[in-house]
Amino acid sequence: MNTKITELLKIKYPIIQAGMVWVSGWKLASAVSNCGGLGLIGSGSMKPDLLREHIQKCKQATKNPFGVNIPLLRGDADELVKVTLEEEVKIVFTSAGHPKKYSQLLKENGVKLIHVVPSVKFALKAQEAGCDAVVGEGVEAGGHNGADEITTFALIPQLVDALEIPVIAAGGIADGRGILAALSLGASGVQIGTRFAATVESSAHENYKRRIVEAKDNDTVLAFAKIGLMRMLKNEFANKAIQAEREGWSEEKLKELLASKRERLGIFEGDEVEGAMEAGQGSGLIKDIPTVEVLFKRLLTEYKSALDRINSFEV
Amino acid sequence: MNTKITELLKIKYPIIQAGMVWVSGWKLASAVSNCGGLGLIGSGSMKPDLLREHIQKCKQATKNPFGVNIPLLRGDADELVKVTLEEEVKIVFTSAGHPKKYSQLLKENGVKLIHVVPSVKFALKAQEAGCDAVVGEGVEAGGHNGADEITTFALIPQLVDALEIPVIAAGGIADGRGILAALSLGASGVQIGTRFAATVESSAHENYKRRIVEAKDNDTVLAFAKIGLMRMLKNEFANKAIQAEREGWSEEKLKELLASKRERLGIFEGDEVEGAMEAGQGSGLIKDIPTVEVLFKRLLTEYKSALDRINSFEV
Repeated sequence: MNTKITELLKIKYPIIQAGMVWVSGWKLASAVSNCGGLGLIGSGSMKPDLLREHIQKCKQATKNPFGVNIPLLRGDADELVKVTLEEEVKIVFTSAGHPKKYSQLLKENGVKLIHVVPSVKFALKAQEAGCDAVVGEGVEAGGHNGADEITTFALIPQLVDALEIPVIAAGGIADGRGILAALSLGASGVQIGTRFAATVESSAHENYKRRIVEAKDNDTVLAFAKIGLMRMLKNEFANKAIQAEREGWSEEKLKELLASKRERLGIFEGDEVEGAMEAGQGSGLIKDIPTVEVLFKRLLTEYKSALDRINSFEV
Repeated sequence: MNTKITELLKIKYPIIQAGMVWVSGWKLASAVSNCGGLGLIGSGSMKPDLLREHIQKCKQATKNPFGVNIPLLRGDADELVKVTLEEEVKIVFTSAGHPKKYSQLLKENGVKLIHVVPSVKFALKAQEAGCDAVVGEGVEAGGHNGADEITTFALIPQLVDALEIPVIAAGGIADGRGILAALSLGASGVQIGTRFAATVESSAHENYKRRIVEAKDNDTVLAFAKIGLMRMLKNEFANKAIQAEREGWSEEKLKELLASKRERLGIFEGDEVEGAMEAGQGSGLIKDIPTVEVLFKRLLTEYKSALDRINSFEV
């Protein structure tokens, strides 16, 4: 396939695996890149030295392009950026913050910079900052979400109309139909999270993968509006978070309830009761835990059959 | 175009104009049906006698199929159903309630029955009740919304997988790209609301239409979680509703704040301060107030050009 995003990133298919805490290390990222998509190492759950190790292993495991996702709100974002530059990673996805701080440095080093945005306003800022593309992420996505709660369906065409740079769609995409729909809305590529989290190569705990497979359409919730929205699977911890908001807890108390350990507990350690099991609304479409290779082929087959169906409606 | 929905409803294009309070009377519905789509008279803001008048005028204004939308929570839903049967309307869309109460009666009279649903659970119930199709409505849609807040992108493919009957997609669709995306997700038709609310033939107030045109991607909010979610344009009333929820108002007090006059005030009387101006997240895509004929042609042109773009990505 040939879109502005395959050209920009020099990849075969415009399918990007989202950087996900405790999920996307070198194993997942290299497997996706080996299939002709773009794998991303999620540095959000890594110290700088661990990120370096993952980058080096990923280089060993694939000769195709891969990238690193860096959440800019991290206290040590400077060091994470430094490691990616030292290791000569040429694709960086940033999220949760303003990319302007690093854009000049990254671009001087020949890095393609792509920022994740939840609205037109932040997308225009990313474009001004010199980003090469944006990921427009709808509120159906798992994990952290923008405060405006704009959905993929509404967000993507508005980004496409507002921007000069290409748009990658994220949020709710879990099969080939979703890829076709995202491109139909004007996107030039897709970023897929939860679907890749439930693969053999994902480093998440088996309990977390199983919970995704079991989830129905209404099994995720948005919580923590006061301190930054997060979408996750329903469980006791999620209920506690919702209840805390209803009771009007302070930001401090909410931050204490969340703490960063919750993600590790849910996703990596598989605590189904007290862990934060971040996942998107597309979970209801996920019915198995395949290898990346099997999944990737299936996505392309589904895409082609959805396209054939569309073309059969004579216009 | 030829889909399961064009066949079921005997229409030329699988484009349905949503039934909308204070917006979709006979003028709008007949204009859409005359273009080859399906117009719906929104009975939600009509007494039974007024509905009868609108149906009779619609019959005069178009020879093509049109339908009536009936919100089943209305106290006089029995009478609204009676009027549609007496006037021999052959297509009924129901929403906000359980269609089982009327499905046998309607089907015995040769009526095609389509129910609006926000989740797989309610869709399965509609199918069991004998509905001929469902409208799957994502949370980006204007007006009343399901409690699970499932988005169009996540909802539609899950409905398609779960049901035998065809699925019409609604929520966030405001241009030809959206129609193509909805069909890509597996829908056999689309229901479009806000985009048709901002047309010449819509009976809404000019202030309401202008506010839709002015709206950006993040200019709608969801409120009234406790008594039934509603999406509307941001204004003083919407802020008041959000604030009331934060302060934990009781259901009774919230119902008092909302009252049914709010919709009339905002949409029909054009009160930009105190009215509820229901609209979807697709508002940001709407930049003018065309006639239905101009809009309909544009939707088809946009659809074709989006399809050409998709087909240019060699797979």
